[in-house]
Amino acid sequence: MNIVIDAFGGDNAPLQVLKGSIDAHNDFGVDVTLVGDEERIKKCAEQNGLDITGLKIKHADTVIDICEEPTEVIKGKKDCSMAVGMKMVADGEGDAFVSAGSTGALVVGATFIVKRIKGVKRPALATVLPTAGDPTMLLDCGANAECRPEMLVQFGIMGSAYMNKIIGVKEPKVALANIGAEETKGRELDLAAYKQLQAAPVNFIGNLEARQLPLGDCDVCVADGFSGNLLLKLYEGMAKFFSGELKNILTSGAKSKIAALMILKNIKDFRKRMDYSEYGGAPLLGTAKPVIKAHGSSDAKAFYNAIRQAKLYIERDVINEITDALETMKNSKSGDADK
Amino acid sequence: MNIVIDAFGGDNAPLQVLKGSIDAHNDFGVDVTLVGDEERIKKCAEQNGLDITGLKIKHADTVIDICEEPTEVIKGKKDCSMAVGMKMVADGEGDAFVSAGSTGALVVGATFIVKRIKGVKRPALATVLPTAGDPTMLLDCGANAECRPEMLVQFGIMGSAYMNKIIGVKEPKVALANIGAEETKGRELDLAAYKQLQAAPVNFIGNLEARQLPLGDCDVCVADGFSGNLLLKLYEGMAKFFSGELKNILTSGAKSKIAALMILKNIKDFRKRMDYSEYGGAPLLGTAKPVIKAHGSSDAKAFYNAIRQAKLYIERDVINEITDALETMKNSKSGDADK
Repeated sequence: MNIVIDAFGGDNAPLQVLKGSIDAHNDFGVDVTLVGDEERIKKCAEQNGLDITGLKIKHADTVIDICEEPTEVIKGKKDCSMAVGMKMVADGEGDAFVSAGSTGALVVGATFIVKRIKGVKRPALATVLPTAGDPTMLLDCGANAECRPEMLVQFGIMGSAYMNKIIGVKEPKVALANIGAEETKGRELDLAAYKQLQAAPVNFIGNLEARQLPLGDCDVCVADGFSGNLLLKLYEGMAKFFSGELKNILTSGAKSKIAALMILKNIKDFRKRMDYSEYGGAPLLGTAKPVIKAHGSSDAKAFYNAIRQAKLYIERDVINEITDALETMKNSKSGDADK
Repeated sequence: MNIVIDAFGGDNAPLQVLKGSIDAHNDFGVDVTLVGDEERIKKCAEQNGLDITGLKIKHADTVIDICEEPTEVIKGKKDCSMAVGMKMVADGEGDAFVSAGSTGALVVGATFIVKRIKGVKRPALATVLPTAGDPTMLLDCGANAECRPEMLVQFGIMGSAYMNKIIGVKEPKVALANIGAEETKGRELDLAAYKQLQAAPVNFIGNLEARQLPLGDCDVCVADGFSGNLLLKLYEGMAKFFSGELKNILTSGAKSKIAALMILKNIKDFRKRMDYSEYGGAPLLGTAKPVIKAHGSSDAKAFYNAIRQAKLYIERDVINEITDALETMKNSKSGDADK
């Protein structure tokens, strides 16, 4: 098994990518290929006393910047680490791809270089959120700003397969993010998606109001990419906001500082529970080979977890699970049509 | 000045409505008319030892339930407290209307009974959110699930007028809720709204990613009603979630309980800062007379604040401010067309 990783994606590349890759290679017994400027990779390892002899290197001349047009990854920047890495996976030289680089470019590259599972309309960016209960997968988190109802149904199927295979949830509860619980709520998109999800091979539990999301009331929350992106980013923003407020509460005044020491363990437990990086990165579900988007601010631990996640993604054959579920739906539909 | 209030709207009606109305009448020197079953209102006052002699009562036979079709307020349920109250305001017997009842019915009634300011395409439900900085008005929070770009522009103008006149913000910073900062981000709706907001008579500062919302980076955050509703409800849900987590941190273990006592004041300050009810209810901006949606769970204090808010809304003439701004925009547009 060979996990291909973009050595130049994210704010902390290449150092943190190298560190995470070394540990993952040692702990999980998988091959890891670092993609990027070979000289710079070797220099970085040397300067930081890192032994990368166990890792493979695939040279790539350039890096795609998050400010560049995402489509450049398949046009002018075909020689960037992200494009070269995805090409390896597409050509069978690698089994999964991990990058903390430009999300837009990764979506374009995944769609046109790695390509989609047969029948998938659009890959979706999926994030596992920590909640008051069990974790919830939210998708699409921004790969597709405009969606059709059939796309939302596929997101439900793909999210379900992932949560089942990777997180171990039996019959994941799939819900549609909406502005009310009743099936008459929402836009035309949501009304149609609701009906189609009822008929789909998933455990559809109906609409979910956004206030229920942090409670963990469902396992898979389906949304168009615009709504999902707003939800994900507000989730992150609120977590940061409250973390800051908690700090204020615990540092204003001498008494508070003593109090803070007394509850330090509880706070650490809470912070750990809210730490996304435990779940790895955001899988781009629907691609023919696993593609994982690591957070732009990923550190060594986050890259380490993303590689572990890629390994599970391959071993537990999520791609076949998705393929089969889509096939089942297609057959039941054509069965309906025969009646 | 006569503020008309739905005595039977919300979870805590009529008792909390009565209490809040009595205090508001005494403190603000405004007439308050309670709308609803006269006998039940008088009985509730008597049973709870409340003196309502200073308040007016307008009888209404029925109540519209949140489970009923919103359009019933202008069809089969014309005799409900909400419809009767709005009719009073439309007929000039009252100057503003407050209700904690069905949001859907209030939007329908406000549009068709109270009617819109000339030129307003759709009224928008606007909520003032507490943030790490100054409060931010988010609109539309759900009155219009599907929007056109011109509607978003009007939301910006109306929110601006409110924040200026009621909260006292000079040249309120107006932003568009979007999935990225660049003006090329978002759906067709957002791309068009961005361009139109640039040309509108507001202080448009560009796109706002959802993670910035709790930081108070803008004064008015414009969104279509679907997105705005998701954002508002997630905001509420996350606040509740963290409040619960904070409680866990401060109650698990004996040491924690002592620590909690030590920082009790800081926690209270934080809770007060996060308390929406300080800002009153959610104004339905764009109606020809002030209409305010109080939260369904409003208590006496929330109704009291909503009545104060209604008074300011009238006194500071927000409606004329909106009318003038829309007129300015219309004229500048026809001026452009003349060129």
